[in-house]
Amino acid sequence: MTVSAALQQSADEAGLLPSHQARLDYRTGKGWSTAGVANGFVQGNLAIIPERYAGAFHRFCQLNPKPCPIIGMSDPGNPHIPALGADLDIRTDVPRYRVWRDGEMVEEPTDLLAHWRDDLVTFVLGCSFSFEEALMADGLPIRHIEQGCRVPMYRTNIACTPSGQFAGPMVVSMRPFKPAQAIRAVQITTRFPAVHGAPVHLGLPEQIGIADINTPDYGDPVPVGTDEIPVFWACGVTPQAVIAAAKLPFAITHAPGLMLITDLRNKDLAVL
Amino acid sequence: MTVSAALQQSADEAGLLPSHQARLDYRTGKGWSTAGVANGFVQGNLAIIPERYAGAFHRFCQLNPKPCPIIGMSDPGNPHIPALGADLDIRTDVPRYRVWRDGEMVEEPTDLLAHWRDDLVTFVLGCSFSFEEALMADGLPIRHIEQGCRVPMYRTNIACTPSGQFAGPMVVSMRPFKPAQAIRAVQITTRFPAVHGAPVHLGLPEQIGIADINTPDYGDPVPVGTDEIPVFWACGVTPQAVIAAAKLPFAITHAPGLMLITDLRNKDLAVL
Repeated sequence: MTVSAALQQSADEAGLLPSHQARLDYRTGKGWSTAGVANGFVQGNLAIIPERYAGAFHRFCQLNPKPCPIIGMSDPGNPHIPALGADLDIRTDVPRYRVWRDGEMVEEPTDLLAHWRDDLVTFVLGCSFSFEEALMADGLPIRHIEQGCRVPMYRTNIACTPSGQFAGPMVVSMRPFKPAQAIRAVQITTRFPAVHGAPVHLGLPEQIGIADINTPDYGDPVPVGTDEIPVFWACGVTPQAVIAAAKLPFAITHAPGLMLITDLRNKDLAVL
Repeated sequence: MTVSAALQQSADEAGLLPSHQARLDYRTGKGWSTAGVANGFVQGNLAIIPERYAGAFHRFCQLNPKPCPIIGMSDPGNPHIPALGADLDIRTDVPRYRVWRDGEMVEEPTDLLAHWRDDLVTFVLGCSFSFEEALMADGLPIRHIEQGCRVPMYRTNIACTPSGQFAGPMVVSMRPFKPAQAIRAVQITTRFPAVHGAPVHLGLPEQIGIADINTPDYGDPVPVGTDEIPVFWACGVTPQAVIAAAKLPFAITHAPGLMLITDLRNKDLAVL
């Protein structure tokens, strides 16, 4: 039995949502990657910012909703976000965090109990896992999942709209599709504006400043067939890169691939 | 004052819908091309088939809804289709018709009074004029309209699903767009399944059997910029080509660009 299946089974036995059970497991040090855990439930990117900078970051997200779709946020100093999960404690419920000081990642703790401050504001941003589930449910193949690697991501020449010290290029993720599949993927992801929504670009990677599709700036390269076109979505790495570039004295994010699992269901994010 | 503006003015004076007034004008021999006439109202492709073949053609349309979206049809021998227009008479209300015998176009009359038969069934199929209006309303440029020519159309290697003697390749129309515009065009036209709906292909024309984008099989070539990709929609020329290839003893279509103007509004065809 896989870890994922075991978590699911224990959740069923306890009568808890699989998402809630997963958070309890991470809280007590069990489990690791959130890939494939609590399928059907929304996973989120995490950004925890001191209140002094939170207003400008909040505006940055509002101004750049495709890379930074807010699905939940906390009051200052409050580690709970009831709208995203019963009993959710942002200090303990993510498998691994990254602590940033002056733009440098200085630590990767498994909880924030030693780092928590009364001025911290938590932002939870939508993640492509949700729309990938919808694409796969429609029968569309996701290349990096087939290949067992990370999605390729690229810095583009598309400038985000700046807010205060938060500024920088949009980072995009890429999934190759045959043309008819690409059209279907536009339709499906359009239904999910809370998790990056429709693609921002397709074909012609050089038009958005991608010189070599085989050399992603983040993640792993995947092959693009001669009968396929690359399709690009705004990516949740954008806010992480922007936070690092802003060189805040202090900030926290999740570690890549180790997300916050919420009690929201992916299907409930569909606008139609 | 243009003919179109004059028609609009006289319609307003008579208290008729502009679409109804346009049909009355065509009925009495006034006016010509339907391009730009009764803006906002649905124009349709026309196929008039003897009842003996109408069942198979109806199934062909049902099996191939993207090139052949039915927006109205008549009872056998009945020249009226009340759902498409008060007072509509299919024998007189289209500016020009094409009469086909054994797959050959033999006449282009301006009415069907001498050709009408009690066994004729009329099919009215959606037309790209409706979705082009929606694209332009969103600010997307339509190249062939900018260039003042006909949309380029191509026979593809996409086989329609056959029904009886009706069979053949899908014909597509092409409009070039920048990638972000192409994504928007997918979204907008998805809202209009009754007028061909979303594109069937984009980029990589050779994948659907188009050897030279600059040599359309119908219509006129238009330039495709190096920063653009060609976007392909199923086209209402498909059923006309299929009807000709079926070599029916007798059939009638509209003459290209001289459509049936209905009282339906384009906006009412939007499914969302």
